[in-house]
Amino acid sequence: MGFDPDSPVFRAHEGGKLEVRSLLPLTDRASLSIAYTPGVAEVCSAIAADESLARGYTWRSRLVAVVSDGTAVLGLGSIGPAAALPVMEGKAALFREFAGLNAVPIVLDTTDPDEIVSTVEHIAPSFGGINLEDISAPRCFEVEARLREKLTIPVFHDDQHGTAIVVLAALRNAARVTGRALADLRVVVSGAGAAGVACTKILLAAGVGDIAVADSKGVIHPGRPDLTAVKAGLAATTNRAGLTGSLADALAGADVFLGLSAGAVGEDAVRSMAAQSIVFALANPNPEVDPAVAHRHAAIVATGRSDYPNQINNVLAFPGVFAGAFDAGARSITENMKLAAAAAISEVVADALEPDCVVPSPFDPRVAPAVAAAVAEQAVRDGVVDVAVDVAVDGADAAADAAAAR
Amino acid sequence: MGFDPDSPVFRAHEGGKLEVRSLLPLTDRASLSIAYTPGVAEVCSAIAADESLARGYTWRSRLVAVVSDGTAVLGLGSIGPAAALPVMEGKAALFREFAGLNAVPIVLDTTDPDEIVSTVEHIAPSFGGINLEDISAPRCFEVEARLREKLTIPVFHDDQHGTAIVVLAALRNAARVTGRALADLRVVVSGAGAAGVACTKILLAAGVGDIAVADSKGVIHPGRPDLTAVKAGLAATTNRAGLTGSLADALAGADVFLGLSAGAVGEDAVRSMAAQSIVFALANPNPEVDPAVAHRHAAIVATGRSDYPNQINNVLAFPGVFAGAFDAGARSITENMKLAAAAAISEVVADALEPDCVVPSPFDPRVAPAVAAAVAEQAVRDGVVDVAVDVAVDGADAAADAAAAR
Repeated sequence: MGFDPDSPVFRAHEGGKLEVRSLLPLTDRASLSIAYTPGVAEVCSAIAADESLARGYTWRSRLVAVVSDGTAVLGLGSIGPAAALPVMEGKAALFREFAGLNAVPIVLDTTDPDEIVSTVEHIAPSFGGINLEDISAPRCFEVEARLREKLTIPVFHDDQHGTAIVVLAALRNAARVTGRALADLRVVVSGAGAAGVACTKILLAAGVGDIAVADSKGVIHPGRPDLTAVKAGLAATTNRAGLTGSLADALAGADVFLGLSAGAVGEDAVRSMAAQSIVFALANPNPEVDPAVAHRHAAIVATGRSDYPNQINNVLAFPGVFAGAFDAGARSITENMKLAAAAAISEVVADALEPDCVVPSPFDPRVAPAVAAAVAEQAVRDGVVDVAVDVAVDGADAAADAAAAR
Repeated sequence: MGFDPDSPVFRAHEGGKLEVRSLLPLTDRASLSIAYTPGVAEVCSAIAADESLARGYTWRSRLVAVVSDGTAVLGLGSIGPAAALPVMEGKAALFREFAGLNAVPIVLDTTDPDEIVSTVEHIAPSFGGINLEDISAPRCFEVEARLREKLTIPVFHDDQHGTAIVVLAALRNAARVTGRALADLRVVVSGAGAAGVACTKILLAAGVGDIAVADSKGVIHPGRPDLTAVKAGLAATTNRAGLTGSLADALAGADVFLGLSAGAVGEDAVRSMAAQSIVFALANPNPEVDPAVAHRHAAIVATGRSDYPNQINNVLAFPGVFAGAFDAGARSITENMKLAAAAAISEVVADALEPDCVVPSPFDPRVAPAVAAAVAEQAVRDGVVDVAVDVAVDGADAAADAAAAR
């Protein structure tokens, strides 16, 4: 790779990938006096008297901050804020293109959780929601938890919950295709980072029968002396079978392999899984199991890659999740809202289910509107909205408009 | 005023005044793989190896953060971050419309200088420059000074320097029209806030003969026991005439009145000024001297209002100042760059000078390109650029494109 200014990728990135536009003309005294002084003072005064008016008369209610400290960027690791910026610009572009939302990258020159939290807290009045991105584990858990506690706007670490929502959507459909219920499944998760922890939590919440989580040292169980607080939590809530060996040991007889690390899994281990097994090998660009090898043994195979069927892509979740939360005026994104998002993604392809179609294409225009509507309705049911909003209509409309524009 | 959803101002503000657009299509796998994964990783890796590449391949090098804590908004005072947001959105829209720059409002939930500085410092890798806005004095001086010290991107408190640049431009031309040099003028400034301090400094730097500054307690002089550090600094550098009385006393025989507070000035005081006097009554919406009254006695009258000639409007300065700094890749905005900006504004109307035309119209399309070119060239002369850039061409082109688009 390296720097090649004439390559299509670098040419496409010249000058960056985003722009801020004015929605009003500022071409003469009359327009300036409405959008700026003296007219704007009326809007300022009204919001000062009743802050809820900021929802209707500023851009923040549909504005996402894409916040990263650049410590866990793609497969590149800790590359710092400047080098992370192209990813965050891309993420912001996805919010625009898939859900019609505004998003701005905020990359930070600190990796200290206290400083990240205080910084985001101080800039929060500028935004309608916070999408945390590419912050390494275990700091990401603490940062998200503290921000959720402090802020009254949605906070969502996409590497955790975006992945978890799409994995659950795909697994629900994979179980359907193979004639099983989630409760029937024994799942083995490889990776106890942001995605592994969040996927495990959402699968347990959705009723998956048993889950064993393996990190680089093997299956996580209460007897291991080397567990972080987060992994000790996993040990307490997973592994009802009491496994203690390696990842390969755990896969023997398992129904589902969920790969969320780069660690390769051999063909023998895949062969040892139960009949009708499900393999989600999501490491990018190199899946933990080669899809061709997986297909020899598994009934359903999914990856994170766009050149294979069943792509597990976060873009199926996060645009609609934020759109739905914004439509409802939600103060937070609850666990139920994430479950509702997963169900909505599943349902989009419910009438066309087959082994190579357990999730919709990332470009399926039905997805974001369906997710937004489900999330908004669940926000109202969960009581995390301040005002009654006609969410079903708003939710469908907003994301549908964006989808139609594509 | 109050909240009237059917008024033109509120209708124009529905949903806010800005949007973020993607510059690349994200409509299929091919485009997604260039703008986002896996293609984007090449750009990230290149920037991680050489951060200077962020200038060409991210949007930050032409992106301004419009930062406010909402403590000194228009004439409304301390109204907080949410209520300040419509002004900051308007400011961002002006950056786009007048100089083709991207700008994002960042309103803060803190008014503590330490927290403002650390917050802006932590988000600085996201931006190419920091425009501080509507932060009350004297905190604004400390915040700006500390950020200028810490950051290697331009930091510019527009309430200070934008106003100062345009005042200097207008005063230079007013002196020309009335056949005097700046060194011949005795100026009386009313107001020792952000604008008063900055105007005084730039006028002294430009060679104005003598300046007396009055606050609400009268002329600032070293004998006053009540001076803040900033005002003590003014006392040390101004008032060579040794005045000690009221603002009205100081105006007797003065050549220039520069009103930067809301304090009204009576007709007698204006009458007492020197022949061919110059009155800049910039308080909005109510000038310190009614323009009709001022015209009975003064040779030149300017206000901040759009419905009178000679409008002193910051929009003549800040778009071109940032555009020029960005074009040159300047690490900061020097005093010389501000003087160059003022000279450029003056020159735009140099061949059409008359008492009612000492500054260009805010909508004169020649202004921003001229300011940008002058600022960029001065940045190179001042050695605050990292790399050689063809600034004259870039500077003129960028702002000219924006001007042409209007």
